[in-house]
Amino acid sequence: MAPKVFYISDGTAITAEVFGHAVLSQFPLEFEQLTIPFVETISKAEAVKRQINDSFITTGERPLVFHSIVKAEIRDIIYSSEGLDYDFLNTFVAPLEQHLGVSAMPVLHRTHGKANHSYETRIDAINFAMENDDGQTMKHMDHADLVLLGVSRCGKTPSSLYLSMQFGIKAANYPFTEDDMDNLKLPDALKRNKSKLFGLTIDPVRLHEIRQSRMENSRYSSLRQCRLEVKEVEMMFKRERIPYIDTTNHSVEEIATKILDVTGMERHMF
Amino acid sequence: MAPKVFYISDGTAITAEVFGHAVLSQFPLEFEQLTIPFVETISKAEAVKRQINDSFITTGERPLVFHSIVKAEIRDIIYSSEGLDYDFLNTFVAPLEQHLGVSAMPVLHRTHGKANHSYETRIDAINFAMENDDGQTMKHMDHADLVLLGVSRCGKTPSSLYLSMQFGIKAANYPFTEDDMDNLKLPDALKRNKSKLFGLTIDPVRLHEIRQSRMENSRYSSLRQCRLEVKEVEMMFKRERIPYIDTTNHSVEEIATKILDVTGMERHMF
Repeated sequence: MAPKVFYISDGTAITAEVFGHAVLSQFPLEFEQLTIPFVETISKAEAVKRQINDSFITTGERPLVFHSIVKAEIRDIIYSSEGLDYDFLNTFVAPLEQHLGVSAMPVLHRTHGKANHSYETRIDAINFAMENDDGQTMKHMDHADLVLLGVSRCGKTPSSLYLSMQFGIKAANYPFTEDDMDNLKLPDALKRNKSKLFGLTIDPVRLHEIRQSRMENSRYSSLRQCRLEVKEVEMMFKRERIPYIDTTNHSVEEIATKILDVTGMERHMF
Repeated sequence: MAPKVFYISDGTAITAEVFGHAVLSQFPLEFEQLTIPFVETISKAEAVKRQINDSFITTGERPLVFHSIVKAEIRDIIYSSEGLDYDFLNTFVAPLEQHLGVSAMPVLHRTHGKANHSYETRIDAINFAMENDDGQTMKHMDHADLVLLGVSRCGKTPSSLYLSMQFGIKAANYPFTEDDMDNLKLPDALKRNKSKLFGLTIDPVRLHEIRQSRMENSRYSSLRQCRLEVKEVEMMFKRERIPYIDTTNHSVEEIATKILDVTGMERHMF
């Protein structure tokens, strides 16, 4: 039976999920996972404790409990359950207090709350990415932090959105289409923002598959057309000395962090 | 001087950042933070070690090093630096191995890599959120997992995108505008998807501020208009028994996880 896992927090539980997920992904097992956010009251904590204990009684296995609970009175209730606690927050906070010579001042919702001073930066960046997706306007290129370039369906949109959401970066993106192929060049708005340009490319066979699932048996999705577009665009990246990466085997997280790594751009953190 | 912090990984370093950020946010201090992802080779690891040691020599303080390094030979080099290691991955992996009776099989890029089987689900969800943002089409409402409703600038777009990106949920969103106010009702495509509807509302004074920064001194941004729209839309949420939350003091993470909590929707994890 798949081991049962609880992610519990008095906030969003996103930190508990990310952390627990990273730890569990080291194991070649399937887990049955349940997230319980906003456990902010004694009575809710007692209910969660009963749920953990019920799982133990039913399965005979102590469930794994990853938590990031800031309030001590809530944490104590979860501690007293039959779950196996993985309390990464407190495991690391105590030694840090000693090293820094400063007491922790736990404040609820500080990690993923709105108090975070760069929150507006982030919302602005998300709106920017939306409004400047897929070359729908060239008006704001001068205000972009970054402009992703590439053929249709190579990963520009998810990457721009991720960069804005996770790192507060104003990322526009601009596609090169079939009509551009005869005489591929950079529009003026991009030419004058050359240092912001970053290219994405993709294996033509994979591109063909992705396009097929959107527009089957079209010229657009044909392997021939995919090969042509990728070749032309890669040649242009080289000609114009635009840095680029291949997205074929990479997730949006990997694409986004590689771009930051290559360009040396500053990341905000949320 | 602000304590120096390194986030280091042989992958994206996103897990190290999220984890370290959660721990450090418990302290009322400013930190000087540097992220170094993709430390995949011995020579890169040696360079990072030198950087950590230089920081120690320059500041006289041992820098904090949060890392999530999967490869043992890379990890050993970082361990041997002058930094203070916060190795959350291994701190928790060893006791888990014991409990599960299974050895960890560390695989690089498993946490934020593309191998994750639900990756396509996620990209589909992101594309869905983009294509069904701001009521630009009603064609796909039957395929949505969730439809967010509310006045312009109450937080629908960032929330939809976050839900798609973080949890793989196909979230559309639909705005109610000035023209709708005289006779506010649900379009047919929404009526027949009633169980998917979720409302967002916002404090009219905050809405006024947000709209002012986009379209100063317009009717759209006037406090009077903001009050009217919020009142009408909240009345409709009540009349139609659509669950809703106030976004005024909440981050996108909080809004997204509250929605999942209230609706009991399943989350994918990436």
